[in-house]
Amino acid sequence: MPGEFALIDRIRARAARRDDVVRGIGDDAAVLAVPDGHELVVTCDTLVAGVHFPDGTAPSDVGYKALAVNLSDLAAMAAAPAWCTLALTLPDGDEAWLDAFLDGFLELADEHGVSLVGGDTTRGPLAMTVTAHGLVPAGQALLRSGARVGEDIWVTGTLGDAAGGLAQWRQRGPASAKLRYRLDRPTPRVQAGLALRGLASAAVDLSDGLAADLGHVLAASGVGARLDLGRLPCSRTLADHFDENRRWELQLTGGDDYELCFTAPAARALEIEQALAALELPATVVGQVEAEPGLRLLTPEGGAWTPPATGYQHFEGGHA
Amino acid sequence: MPGEFALIDRIRARAARRDDVVRGIGDDAAVLAVPDGHELVVTCDTLVAGVHFPDGTAPSDVGYKALAVNLSDLAAMAAAPAWCTLALTLPDGDEAWLDAFLDGFLELADEHGVSLVGGDTTRGPLAMTVTAHGLVPAGQALLRSGARVGEDIWVTGTLGDAAGGLAQWRQRGPASAKLRYRLDRPTPRVQAGLALRGLASAAVDLSDGLAADLGHVLAASGVGARLDLGRLPCSRTLADHFDENRRWELQLTGGDDYELCFTAPAARALEIEQALAALELPATVVGQVEAEPGLRLLTPEGGAWTPPATGYQHFEGGHA
Repeated sequence: MPGEFALIDRIRARAARRDDVVRGIGDDAAVLAVPDGHELVVTCDTLVAGVHFPDGTAPSDVGYKALAVNLSDLAAMAAAPAWCTLALTLPDGDEAWLDAFLDGFLELADEHGVSLVGGDTTRGPLAMTVTAHGLVPAGQALLRSGARVGEDIWVTGTLGDAAGGLAQWRQRGPASAKLRYRLDRPTPRVQAGLALRGLASAAVDLSDGLAADLGHVLAASGVGARLDLGRLPCSRTLADHFDENRRWELQLTGGDDYELCFTAPAARALEIEQALAALELPATVVGQVEAEPGLRLLTPEGGAWTPPATGYQHFEGGHA
Repeated sequence: MPGEFALIDRIRARAARRDDVVRGIGDDAAVLAVPDGHELVVTCDTLVAGVHFPDGTAPSDVGYKALAVNLSDLAAMAAAPAWCTLALTLPDGDEAWLDAFLDGFLELADEHGVSLVGGDTTRGPLAMTVTAHGLVPAGQALLRSGARVGEDIWVTGTLGDAAGGLAQWRQRGPASAKLRYRLDRPTPRVQAGLALRGLASAAVDLSDGLAADLGHVLAASGVGARLDLGRLPCSRTLADHFDENRRWELQLTGGDDYELCFTAPAARALEIEQALAALELPATVVGQVEAEPGLRLLTPEGGAWTPPATGYQHFEGGHA
């Protein structure tokens, strides 16, 4: 087994370096230059094998997802990703596994111009914690607390695919590669988050499912909401594999989509559509912010909908 | 078992908040204000149960050490600690364990004015990753690469106590509570790091043992060194429990001391002594930087010393 320092050298050799990295991997800590007039946005998420991704997931997908879930948090704050650290715990010093993991991790890092500036490699049960750092002009971060009564509730992309992929994997039955791909390689909506600066009032990323994550926004903002289930954006693939009731359950409670949910005044709808269309990212109004606390789920016929009591169990833990 | 969000609320309720925390725990990410003219210093370290601390270590000690090892890295960069995130993986949602862990973690955080601004709680084998953020006036970070030929090599405090405590625990024989305390509750030399701004040329914290950690400084600076083993500072307790040869081994290869090792021109010796004396922290010159690469270990009689072939196996993994 190669030593810890050999693993670190392997990571260091492949890490890109931005101009604002004064000192990257290779000292006691990284030294980074935050531009004047900007605030620093910091988030961290852990993935544990067998808890946050199925055992046997390709290491490149694990690497991709470990960074993606963090960039998704930055996107929800309207922050531009800048730097990250990687704390990687491996059962053994498997260099081939590490190289494949880095393939996925650095592919996404390079796509978004993120420098890997430090970290830690340790021996133990397979797990990793990424801390991602982004930058936002002071005062422009999108918070969960900004939703106001009467605003539209938007979501990007389509919902439920990742949860559908996980449900199929759990059942060990027929599985759609498209759904599984959405589970393993979620796209963090970084550009959308940046485009929403000054347009959206509040935002959250969908890691735990629309009901729970929108619930955080409502609680932080002291408001309630109505969701129109018939308007929840759904991929053709999800519709091919699950009936309507099951789809709503997956979309509302499944999580792992890493789409953005945000609120905005109706007067900004056209600007929002244009901004996201320029990114070729569909966005859909799925409900409205209301004064009455709580979340009301309405079927296309206007009746109240209650999810099945079984409940969907997803992989993600809570994060702050 | 309480849910992830209940655990996060439990953490959030106890986290202190600095004025420069625009948004702490409770959004998708933290928002932090870096003062103009300062650089951001970032480090992260993981502790895994049974790898980085003995099973059965008191949870308050685990919490203390998880933050201490990170503050030690900031100290070695001469950075003032500001914020941290905590990614905590627990086998179950044991609230009593979490509370005790937070007792130790937040005791040290409060001592150094560090705000816990975010994190993640997940289910899995016991482990935690802390990412610590510090601030340093631009250009004043102490790097490993600044050592110059002819400079003194200094260490703070005494060396080998933590390794002695670990060796006694491994042997399941008579154990000194003082040595074990140094293993479980290392003191990060934060104030010493700040005092060394402008005085020291290079610095590193002693996590992996003096030989390895000084080795990083020498490699980064393109120099070598001579260490005088007779000058290595040793506690009375360590001397009571281990003979001279074993002490040198523990001091050179044991790690876990979290003292600082730094280099400085001999002309700065008096200023350094005074600055550290004001902190009531002893510091000792243990050798000199030399042009010839490599590390030469000299006994008090002037002979070369070679550590026993068995080698000391410590708990810490490598980190970058």
